[in-house]
Amino acid sequence: MIVRPHQHWFFRLFVWHGSVLPDILFRLSLNLIMSIIAVICFHWYERIGIHLTTAPFSLLGIAIAIFLGFRNNASYARYTEARRLWGSLLITQRSLLRQVKSALTDEQQILLFSKMLIAFAWSMKHQLRHTSPQDDLRRLVPARYLSQVEASSQPTNRLLLCMGDWLGEQRRAGHISDLLYTSIDANLNRLSDVLGGCDRIANTPIPFAYTLILHRTVYLFCTLLPFALVADLHYLTPLVSVFISYTFLSLESLAEELEDPFGSSPNDLPLNALCNGIEIILCEMLDRPGPEKMRPDANCVLT
Amino acid sequence: MIVRPHQHWFFRLFVWHGSVLPDILFRLSLNLIMSIIAVICFHWYERIGIHLTTAPFSLLGIAIAIFLGFRNNASYARYTEARRLWGSLLITQRSLLRQVKSALTDEQQILLFSKMLIAFAWSMKHQLRHTSPQDDLRRLVPARYLSQVEASSQPTNRLLLCMGDWLGEQRRAGHISDLLYTSIDANLNRLSDVLGGCDRIANTPIPFAYTLILHRTVYLFCTLLPFALVADLHYLTPLVSVFISYTFLSLESLAEELEDPFGSSPNDLPLNALCNGIEIILCEMLDRPGPEKMRPDANCVLT
Amino acid sequence: MIVRPHQHWFFRLFVWHGSVLPDILFRLSLNLIMSIIAVICFHWYERIGIHLTTAPFSLLGIAIAIFLGFRNNASYARYTEARRLWGSLLITQRSLLRQVKSALTDEQQILLFSKMLIAFAWSMKHQLRHTSPQDDLRRLVPARYLSQVEASSQPTNRLLLCMGDWLGEQRRAGHISDLLYTSIDANLNRLSDVLGGCDRIANTPIPFAYTLILHRTVYLFCTLLPFALVADLHYLTPLVSVFISYTFLSLESLAEELEDPFGSSPNDLPLNALCNGIEIILCEMLDRPGPEKMRPDANCVLT
Amino acid sequence: MIVRPHQHWFFRLFVWHGSVLPDILFRLSLNLIMSIIAVICFHWYERIGIHLTTAPFSLLGIAIAIFLGFRNNASYARYTEARRLWGSLLITQRSLLRQVKSALTDEQQILLFSKMLIAFAWSMKHQLRHTSPQDDLRRLVPARYLSQVEASSQPTNRLLLCMGDWLGEQRRAGHISDLLYTSIDANLNRLSDVLGGCDRIANTPIPFAYTLILHRTVYLFCTLLPFALVADLHYLTPLVSVFISYTFLSLESLAEELEDPFGSSPNDLPLNALCNGIEIILCEMLDRPGPEKMRPDANCVLT
Amino acid sequence: MIVRPHQHWFFRLFVWHGSVLPDILFRLSLNLIMSIIAVICFHWYERIGIHLTTAPFSLLGIAIAIFLGFRNNASYARYTEARRLWGSLLITQRSLLRQVKSALTDEQQILLFSKMLIAFAWSMKHQLRHTSPQDDLRRLVPARYLSQVEASSQPTNRLLLCMGDWLGEQRRAGHISDLLYTSIDANLNRLSDVLGGCDRIANTPIPFAYTLILHRTVYLFCTLLPFALVADLHYLTPLVSVFISYTFLSLESLAEELEDPFGSSPNDLPLNALCNGIEIILCEMLDRPGPEKMRPDANCVLT
Repeated sequence: MIVRPHQHWFFRLFVWHGSVLPDILFRLSLNLIMSIIAVICFHWYERIGIHLTTAPFSLLGIAIAIFLGFRNNASYARYTEARRLWGSLLITQRSLLRQVKSALTDEQQILLFSKMLIAFAWSMKHQLRHTSPQDDLRRLVPARYLSQVEASSQPTNRLLLCMGDWLGEQRRAGHISDLLYTSIDANLNRLSDVLGGCDRIANTPIPFAYTLILHRTVYLFCTLLPFALVADLHYLTPLVSVFISYTFLSLESLAEELEDPFGSSPNDLPLNALCNGIEIILCEMLDRPGPEKMRPDANCVLT
Repeated sequence: MIVRPHQHWFFRLFVWHGSVLPDILFRLSLNLIMSIIAVICFHWYERIGIHLTTAPFSLLGIAIAIFLGFRNNASYARYTEARRLWGSLLITQRSLLRQVKSALTDEQQILLFSKMLIAFAWSMKHQLRHTSPQDDLRRLVPARYLSQVEASSQPTNRLLLCMGDWLGEQRRAGHISDLLYTSIDANLNRLSDVLGGCDRIANTPIPFAYTLILHRTVYLFCTLLPFALVADLHYLTPLVSVFISYTFLSLESLAEELEDPFGSSPNDLPLNALCNGIEIILCEMLDRPGPEKMRPDANCVLT
Repeated sequence: MIVRPHQHWFFRLFVWHGSVLPDILFRLSLNLIMSIIAVICFHWYERIGIHLTTAPFSLLGIAIAIFLGFRNNASYARYTEARRLWGSLLITQRSLLRQVKSALTDEQQILLFSKMLIAFAWSMKHQLRHTSPQDDLRRLVPARYLSQVEASSQPTNRLLLCMGDWLGEQRRAGHISDLLYTSIDANLNRLSDVLGGCDRIANTPIPFAYTLILHRTVYLFCTLLPFALVADLHYLTPLVSVFISYTFLSLESLAEELEDPFGSSPNDLPLNALCNGIEIILCEMLDRPGPEKMRPDANCVLT
Repeated sequence: MIVRPHQHWFFRLFVWHGSVLPDILFRLSLNLIMSIIAVICFHWYERIGIHLTTAPFSLLGIAIAIFLGFRNNASYARYTEARRLWGSLLITQRSLLRQVKSALTDEQQILLFSKMLIAFAWSMKHQLRHTSPQDDLRRLVPARYLSQVEASSQPTNRLLLCMGDWLGEQRRAGHISDLLYTSIDANLNRLSDVLGGCDRIANTPIPFAYTLILHRTVYLFCTLLPFALVADLHYLTPLVSVFISYTFLSLESLAEELEDPFGSSPNDLPLNALCNGIEIILCEMLDRPGPEKMRPDANCVLT
Repeated sequence: MIVRPHQHWFFRLFVWHGSVLPDILFRLSLNLIMSIIAVICFHWYERIGIHLTTAPFSLLGIAIAIFLGFRNNASYARYTEARRLWGSLLITQRSLLRQVKSALTDEQQILLFSKMLIAFAWSMKHQLRHTSPQDDLRRLVPARYLSQVEASSQPTNRLLLCMGDWLGEQRRAGHISDLLYTSIDANLNRLSDVLGGCDRIANTPIPFAYTLILHRTVYLFCTLLPFALVADLHYLTPLVSVFISYTFLSLESLAEELEDPFGSSPNDLPLNALCNGIEIILCEMLDRPGPEKMRPDANCVLT
């Protein structure tokens, strides 16, 4: 995620990092070359009777803009839902810790439970980003659960099972009343909802044909555009053509970037910072020192 | 579902499978032929005083694009709702198994219940795809329930009834407390919601008139388009006309494909893989060996 | 509801029934006559200095298309919400019957309750379609409740009250525990939600001014269109004008049809079939013979 | 609310009441005068070298249409949410009365409670419309609560508090069990949700800048439009210009009307009729005579 | 928030405050200067063969309008969600106070709890606006909790913890039954939801690339526009160009303003007034004098 610096509107025009420019620079350059070719060849191809006017491209461009608007909507909806799920994770974990803290008196057990909550968040992050959770699991998961979590092919879900076991123990030991148990169990189910929701977003992309069709039409549109503009604009063709292409290519590229909000490109969700924030808040609730708060890097990017 | 390979943007332009090209190839060819006819006949039909200009087609094209955007939205909403219901199925089954596992001690009974959960998923898949559930039912449903499930005209709903009966037995035997029973019953109701929701999507299409009106206007628009373009574009008419037609026809065709997300075309939901995933996860929760994980086929399609 | 036959795309172009063509045929004919008048009078009215060009109509047409898109969205949202409520009706009734069946042992009482559930569905249908529920009430409502239900000005709501009374009796007789009673009562509240939601949709249309404004602008637009097209298209004016008018008029007409999803036009919800489906499923749950399943008529229409 | 008469499509073209025509008539007349000025001055201002063409107005008009579509969406969403809240009010009150009726035997107390429910609805109406609730409060609120409700600066919320007190009394008197009390209390919370939701809609308009920007651009657009059209359309300028202005002004005006759905313009929610309907239904549930059902007035308006 | 005065439509055209004009005035002036340069240089740059026509700008303008519509939707959705969360805060606090008031008899304890509720609202406001909560905390938080709240890095969350502790005490003292405790605890969880939701909106902006891309394309579009218009409009270029730029720039600027609905620009949420309203209502419920109601300032702005 880019943390927006409150710049003056003028300087914002020249920000480089976090704009999707790096991804589309090559295609924009191709478009520039096409435009120059169009200007150079214009007289020659007009003489042999080839015409391209703006009208059909106007129709096509607006149609593509409408479909691109739909695609952006779909991608952005995935992004906001993913963020909402992580927000729900924090809220649920806070409620769980509050409930456990008010019920138990054994500080060791509360600490153990809070560590498993934190481990759950980090483990989910690793699962969504396809990285190895080993370091974080070893740092956080209590010894008695570590082996079965590490052995499992689905460590995040296994952590949930372990929390359920631990909770059952506390109830059988008489530390947690039946009514409270039901209420805590409902919150564990909410954790399961969050995990299932994130998995769904990560594993089911927007139907691939949408991506394909828009990818192709936008690209072909931008490639043919200079030949349609050149009759009207002559030497200004490269300027206008690159400008229009920038608008379409950058939005198409951004929609593709946001489609997988758990990725690690600059506009994706800052899962590391979110896990870090959860760890800080849960530690603060137990009046224990937490980790340092993560700050955006030099390019204003939180990962 | 197409599992998107992380290709370079350039090679992605030429992907064949999973694009809706196969469905619209014939119509695109017709359009190409029309374009060639338009180019050939141009001088002749201009002489007899027939004119078609781009302007009315521009108006019409943009209007159709707006309505097509609405239709894509409606189809995509059905697709995401269907996926969400299947996600909810997995989450609910995971919660149910966790609750039952923490309450009972008889491993046989837990195993029996997990098999009925898995059978529920497969049976629902068969119901939505109109295939015979017999093989999966025989493989999974315990002997004491098999006959009544097979005899029923609605095996998926009957499985739910059987789970309810089984649960009532466990309660009467004193294995499940009243409070926990209520909570498990609420989860059975959620399974019923999922089944009802999927049935609703499968049985109530988008009002047929929408499909009809757009099908016709898109087709007629693409057919007349070359005659409107030819006055401006001459020899380039086929290129531009096929390009515009591709944009409209492919999106119309994809919207129709996604309208029934439980079908078996490449962009539909991978119900087999989802059921397989549920089976793997539930088995893992009981530390039992599950089936192999399904992988996309050579065309990157999960069914 | 039209049950979509899986036709070839080509034959689908000529489907008559369920397209909204019958509703707009007269207006399309008027448009055709206008077009012919425009073609005939063209030279005369150009001579006296009257001009109409496509440009302002292009602007207007696209603006109307955008507003029509909004209106279609609003109508379709009502349609899907109505369908969702009926889906929720089925799910809730299934859950209620399952709960009652698991609690009671007196088969007569279970049968009585299931009949009242079925009567509730049919009575709601009659209320939404403004038809007389008498026949269905007499067929289904048990004798002891029939007189007060028939006497009531709101039979559907009264049925709900009677179910509440019956449930209270069962509890007082000790057949239903307090916890289960609360859970069944929550499902009765869901039935009340469904009834209230359907009533809301039936009684509160989309603000009438939207309907009026679009009705007028679409009609006036289609009437003036041929005079704007004729300067460019001459003899082809009727073809293009009728085509554009078809797109706009049919979508406007369909939006009006879907605005009241409980009506009896071909694209409305098949309330009879839905009630019939509920009756079949509830009967099947009690292993009793149910009614025949309704099939679409010769025009593929379910009512 | 306008209760839509099922007129023939033709006669509907000439409906006056409930269309927003009265609100925009003056602006339309201004536009007509502008158009006539444009036609008269055309030759003069063309001679001094002033040109206005349709092209930039086409771009601007479509852009405004898109933003107007967004604004209509936002206003309509407020309207439907408000209606949904009032629907939820009816459903919740019905459930509350059913629950109380099944629990208590003292008919006087049930009657007292039903009167407070009805008073709550009327009081909320007065609060939302900024009218004095005194008459309705005196008619409905039982004597023992009347003084504190009338003295309060927030009578609707105070009524809720009184209902809570009354309920507490009944529980302390042993007439209502703890479990039922919790369930009734949850419904009181739903009433509080409805009140809070309606207050939110009434007190937080759509950000004023949206209203301002669209109000201005639509007005300026309509004022300049005739000067752009006149070069193409000459004597037909007034006709087309007024038509286009009608489309834009009426939708802008309607969006503003719907933004406050609790107002008393013809397209707003019929709060009087909704309160009247609640009173009738609650009376019918107690088998008591209720008020007359409100009917739309001569202009088909329900207030 | 601007409290809309019910002005005549005509005078509304000239409202200055709360329109986003102040933010874009500089850019509009630049656009005016560009337009004048375009008019002056027109003959010169036409002579050297540079052309810019309206057609490509029409395509681009409509595409930008579509994307701007999407961005406005996203920003407005954040604004309404934020308002909804604050509405939920009021409703939940009202319910909490009602529940506590009906359970306890010690007026001092009820007063103490109500003060903590009010402190929660003010503290959340300070957290969202990055201002110091010290004054409000000292005014409201009871002495026994003040030190730990002030010491905490997250005072709002800490207040929630303290309320949980206080509630636990009351239960252990036997003043609150288990069932009521569960219900109050659920409302505390709702407060936690509100806090988490507001934090999410405040900390996760719309992906920065959207802001960047639209900021740039709108700016570049407005800068180049006069050069495209001048060929058609000559001396009227500045008028039309500034008008079109106003439409695009103001909507882009407003979308950016609404993206952070907790800011302090005129169109943001009036957090001070909302907190003030909560304080008044909670005081009224205890029949205690509350603060003065905040009124909009001379510019109709509530902060």
